[in-house]
Amino acid sequence: MTARHLIWPRLAAALFLVIAVLRPPAQAQPTSLASWNDGPAQQAIVDFVRITTDKASQSYVPPEDRIATFDQDGTLWVEHPLFTQAMFALDRVRALAPAHPEWKTEQPFKTVLSGDPGALATLTEKDWTEIVGATHAGMSNDEFQAIAKQWLEAAQHPRFKRPYTDLVYQPMLEVMAYLRANGFRTYIVSGGGQEFMRVYAERVYGIPPEQIVGSSIVTHYEMKNGQPVLMRLPKVFFIDDKDGKAVGINLFIGKRPYASFGNSDGDREMLEWTAAGAGVRLKMLVLHDDAVREYAYGPAASLPDTKLGAFTPALYDKAKKSGWTVISMKNDWKRIFPFE
Amino acid sequence: MTARHLIWPRLAAALFLVIAVLRPPAQAQPTSLASWNDGPAQQAIVDFVRITTDKASQSYVPPEDRIATFDQDGTLWVEHPLFTQAMFALDRVRALAPAHPEWKTEQPFKTVLSGDPGALATLTEKDWTEIVGATHAGMSNDEFQAIAKQWLEAAQHPRFKRPYTDLVYQPMLEVMAYLRANGFRTYIVSGGGQEFMRVYAERVYGIPPEQIVGSSIVTHYEMKNGQPVLMRLPKVFFIDDKDGKAVGINLFIGKRPYASFGNSDGDREMLEWTAAGAGVRLKMLVLHDDAVREYAYGPAASLPDTKLGAFTPALYDKAKKSGWTVISMKNDWKRIFPFE
Repeated sequence: MTARHLIWPRLAAALFLVIAVLRPPAQAQPTSLASWNDGPAQQAIVDFVRITTDKASQSYVPPEDRIATFDQDGTLWVEHPLFTQAMFALDRVRALAPAHPEWKTEQPFKTVLSGDPGALATLTEKDWTEIVGATHAGMSNDEFQAIAKQWLEAAQHPRFKRPYTDLVYQPMLEVMAYLRANGFRTYIVSGGGQEFMRVYAERVYGIPPEQIVGSSIVTHYEMKNGQPVLMRLPKVFFIDDKDGKAVGINLFIGKRPYASFGNSDGDREMLEWTAAGAGVRLKMLVLHDDAVREYAYGPAASLPDTKLGAFTPALYDKAKKSGWTVISMKNDWKRIFPFE
Repeated sequence: MTARHLIWPRLAAALFLVIAVLRPPAQAQPTSLASWNDGPAQQAIVDFVRITTDKASQSYVPPEDRIATFDQDGTLWVEHPLFTQAMFALDRVRALAPAHPEWKTEQPFKTVLSGDPGALATLTEKDWTEIVGATHAGMSNDEFQAIAKQWLEAAQHPRFKRPYTDLVYQPMLEVMAYLRANGFRTYIVSGGGQEFMRVYAERVYGIPPEQIVGSSIVTHYEMKNGQPVLMRLPKVFFIDDKDGKAVGINLFIGKRPYASFGNSDGDREMLEWTAAGAGVRLKMLVLHDDAVREYAYGPAASLPDTKLGAFTPALYDKAKKSGWTVISMKNDWKRIFPFE
């Protein structure tokens, strides 16, 4: 073999590299779903991305329409024993209690201050609305976000003894990154507070403030010392849960998602709304069936169902009948958390 | 000179070209504000873009924070003699009248059906809320958008005898394109109906549904023939005007704009909110002072002020005192409409 014969493969390889670097990806990026076991859930994600990003496919979706929506609590991070924002609200009641002596006798604050976990489970939705009003309002939006940020830096999950923002699911981080690498925009669509999530969602999930759809209270524009502020009022503006998720998706995005991920009855309408669109749509539900590495509840119950975040048998039936994909944390996920 | 000497400049030129093509623009793109006369308004735009996109500048803004918000009626397109969506609502009352014999005697419908332009000017905000309820609700969102699309294709402006979507301001199209070419995302923030604007905003302004912030009515998630729909209810959900514009910007975007464009008292809080941010911010108001090519109203009044869309002397004073830039349609714009 002459030197001339040797140089061609090298040149070809170099050219290929240049072309590969310069050319935008025409088709699905190689999977980096490293924390997923081989199985129907991983396969559903890979198949969906391949078929919606291949220009030759009948189910091709142009980049501007590639929208993927994710519930947060129980879908992207741990929601047991209570979801994180509820933990925040309870801690805020405790922190504010010295300035509210009346809370010693007034409900629902008396229950919160009792420190009895069993009593906390009896709090109703109305109680929670009062707790949110007392802890999330009466300050400017900037002030609220500063308080939330400070709390998130200090607070720890009772079982895992880590900041709540550590308790995100590694396989879901990979799905979000994989979808984004394939031109999808990822949105959070959560019953949680929009401004609370905006404090950490960019750092933790790579999702910017304008892609956070959540619940909100009324804000009021006011001048304080010659500067405008948005003051938070103790009045519900929008509840982004159940049917509110379909309403919120339309309100904030104005496009129907091609992929939606949830884990509870609160996500049913989001998945229905996604499924009702034309073409191929990905509908997935995370099943908490891993009591060892995380928790088991819902259809895989070894824990009693919380009123918040229930995955009912009816939803499980609906998923089976409608061909929605159920993700088994136990079987589909090699790893649960990034720190493992 | 040998052949070897000749090859170097060519190679250098070729390399320069390759580098120029590959390198993302570090600084402001060359202006294409072709319909703007030289003057302080054009200069303010060019200076703002240069200083916020030059990495060496102390006022550099990272691409993810480059948000520009635009009022619509009177800022991006004609709002006289009535703004377009009001024209649509009045036409809908006329179209629906045969099915509503009671409107012949019931207000405000009787006034609308009278066909007296003077009487229309007497309609109050409450009247308009009733008219919107009767014409914008009671159908699914998809049905509403189909009706709006059909109307926009057929309706013509009474003076210009062209579709309303032709009556957009060429200089503002250029500003939006110029900002986008420099990494800004352009949002509409209008008192107009969000779903109405979404029908044409992508085609007309290049602004996608998720970047339209507007007023909205309550929608209700329902199953119809096994398919989910969002039904429009005759109940106001959010008014994106005046203080509502600052609230809406925070709600939908969650970031403070670096540039805002308006033309009336309804935009005052949006510009205040923009101005209150750190660093360099662009605040601009379109002054309608060209009765020949468009209209003259507000501080340049040769027409009586409409209750809708007023540019009051107080706003004019505020702009002057605060260093907001007033755009004179007469002096700053070479051309008003794309079709000229």
